Amino acid sequence: MIPMNPVDPVDPVDSADPVDSADPVGSADSVNPVDSADSVNLVDSGAEAPGRAPLPLDALTDVAGIRVGHAEVAGAGALSGTTVVLAPEGGAVAAVDVRGGGPGTRETDALDPRNLVQRVDAVVLTGGSAYGLDAASGVMAWLEERGRGVRVGPGPTQVVPVVPAAALFDLGRGGDWRARPDASTGRAAVEAAAATGPGEPVAEGGVGAGTGAMAGQLKGGIGTASVRLASGVTVAALVAVNAAGSVVDPGTGVLFGEYGAGEPPAHPPAEVHAAAERRLAREREATEAAGGGAPPFNTTIAVVATDADLTRAQAQKLAGTAHDGLARAVRPVHLLTDGDTVFTLATGQVRVPSGDPAAVNEILAAGADVLARAIVKAVRAARSTEGPGGRLLSYTELYGD
Amino acid sequence: MIPMNPVDPVDPVDSADPVDSADPVGSADSVNPVDSADSVNLVDSGAEAPGRAPLPLDALTDVAGIRVGHAEVAGAGALSGTTVVLAPEGGAVAAVDVRGGGPGTRETDALDPRNLVQRVDAVVLTGGSAYGLDAASGVMAWLEERGRGVRVGPGPTQVVPVVPAAALFDLGRGGDWRARPDASTGRAAVEAAAATGPGEPVAEGGVGAGTGAMAGQLKGGIGTASVRLASGVTVAALVAVNAAGSVVDPGTGVLFGEYGAGEPPAHPPAEVHAAAERRLAREREATEAAGGGAPPFNTTIAVVATDADLTRAQAQKLAGTAHDGLARAVRPVHLLTDGDTVFTLATGQVRVPSGDPAAVNEILAAGADVLARAIVKAVRAARSTEGPGGRLLSYTELYGD
Repeated sequence: MIPMNPVDPVDPVDSADPVDSADPVGSADSVNPVDSADSVNLVDSGAEAPGRAPLPLDALTDVAGIRVGHAEVAGAGALSGTTVVLAPEGGAVAAVDVRGGGPGTRETDALDPRNLVQRVDAVVLTGGSAYGLDAASGVMAWLEERGRGVRVGPGPTQVVPVVPAAALFDLGRGGDWRARPDASTGRAAVEAAAATGPGEPVAEGGVGAGTGAMAGQLKGGIGTASVRLASGVTVAALVAVNAAGSVVDPGTGVLFGEYGAGEPPAHPPAEVHAAAERRLAREREATEAAGGGAPPFNTTIAVVATDADLTRAQAQKLAGTAHDGLARAVRPVHLLTDGDTVFTLATGQVRVPSGDPAAVNEILAAGADVLARAIVKAVRAARSTEGPGGRLLSYTELYGD
Repeated sequence: MIPMNPVDPVDPVDSADPVDSADPVGSADSVNPVDSADSVNLVDSGAEAPGRAPLPLDALTDVAGIRVGHAEVAGAGALSGTTVVLAPEGGAVAAVDVRGGGPGTRETDALDPRNLVQRVDAVVLTGGSAYGLDAASGVMAWLEERGRGVRVGPGPTQVVPVVPAAALFDLGRGGDWRARPDASTGRAAVEAAAATGPGEPVAEGGVGAGTGAMAGQLKGGIGTASVRLASGVTVAALVAVNAAGSVVDPGTGVLFGEYGAGEPPAHPPAEVHAAAERRLAREREATEAAGGGAPPFNTTIAVVATDADLTRAQAQKLAGTAHDGLARAVRPVHLLTDGDTVFTLATGQVRVPSGDPAAVNEILAAGADVLARAIVKAVRAARSTEGPGGRLLSYTELYGD
């Protein structure tokens, strides 16, 4: 764990804010203590755009009160897992935009802004394709035990927790087609999330829902990134990259998501790129000779979180623009055989002036940028993995760090 | 006009195809004569991806039977216009995906695949913000006179033409806030389209709906591009680029849409980029000193056309993935103050195997790529224009061709 460096909300919403640290609702889930805003030493280097600043963790947990936990399926032949994003006590405004043509989801209709449920306590990203959606069941049980969810009776645990979930396809990647996340994996992931302190770093690469993920022909995984806007709003993303499309420009070896994201990316030397292409071709042939081959079902799933007090409809708009980051970092994307899904969580700690489109626009644009960067970080964090059909090569094994 | 070089549909749908050239419905709108498929000399150079081939016009009119007409608002102080995309006689399957937060549209609800109207005869892209939607009225009148539209009575002209339209914001760019497209502009544009022969090239830059368009701080305009897939399907785009976001990477001067699109783009020399930035800053100061400044309302609107026999739902999916091309070429995009809208037209000449997601995926991916390329072509085709608040600089004036 890196040293904690709390970042304070600016212009905190003082009333009716369940995560307002001045009035914590639950002790276990209270957010970072509020210091003077001046105590945060914001620097501009490394920021993506004027007025943006990096945050200490560069992770989803830079949004105060948000926790992340990973769990993996145990046993030989297993290469899958589940990641849980746990909202602060009292929940967060949530939304979703499903833009892939082959999604595997649960509790997404409840997130339609016209529908009943106002806040959710957790979001699940999971491997195991549609089977893996059972992981949400374990998260529900954990929340039920703590009386967190939509209250439906007078008893302390008479609640129905709404746990939206999205699954990615990784069946058989570890050799055992039936080694999939289930309720116990979901429970392990939410317990891992709850065991973290405020503002802890988030493991990236082949963990949780990213355990068996692939990015095109490369090893995929979990990535996370965050940014703080000049308005004081924090926008962050966590993604499980399991794309059918490529994250690498086949013409150069550059990660698509690094183009136009600040300084021009360093282009890999031509001989390194050529060697990478040759090696990937050999792996492809070996896999095909062994009767394998990447199935055409893939999915990139993500959570974008912010401390802004977005309405549910604004949160849904943010989920939509976040997909633009996916479009920049993965090509092609959003096809019939992708299940690309982005959830948003808004904790509501920082007030966004209503009637000021520019303030919302800044958050929308940041959502796309931070998701693209999380994808880059996921691919760079991934490490090569042995699969039953051969070696799943990582970007860094082919191109270096 | 460049020499016509007809491209033939492969695997034509023989029955019930209103644009099947072997059985033309209307003489004026009959499509290119069918030659042997072997007569087309497909070359791979310049294509974006394996199996893709360039087409003779690199324009929306490479989709057989599609015609395009532009018209401009006349008079001093006017800097606006309308572009009409005219479908073959009998119409085309149509769909739309509106992803901007401030759209100005007409007849888009009729395109919901659940709703009545099966085919449309024309799509209108227009300047003049919501006022400019009146241009569709002139197109309706022209279609009514020819008995083209949804038949609602026995008389030859008892039809209701459904003419979906989207408007972009260019009010006041020529000095006269009230000089906007109206029904007469729409009629002029559809007449211009009808006056073209099959497979004519399409004017780009500051014409039609692109007349007063801006791309960030640069002059925007009309661009068009096409590609032929290995399956024989043609996918093409026409766009009016009027983006609030930037089409130029501020770090390098490269057009965002050129990253990762094949060979690495040539980076402008650092001194050219620095000079461009200085010049844009001076123009911005001069405009602001004159009390002007780019209003924050902008919109990129486009038509993606294909000769594939997509269903209405598939056409809607194509409109959605085409927005990924917008996401790659414009940053940020899809904000509350953008009205970004993509229409699709599918003429149905080339059969897409039902139950083969890969065949549809190829079209979806091409839609994004070809729209990104059309945006690049629009910006490169635009020429600097004098506006009331100063000079609207073009990319080529700043960076060369």
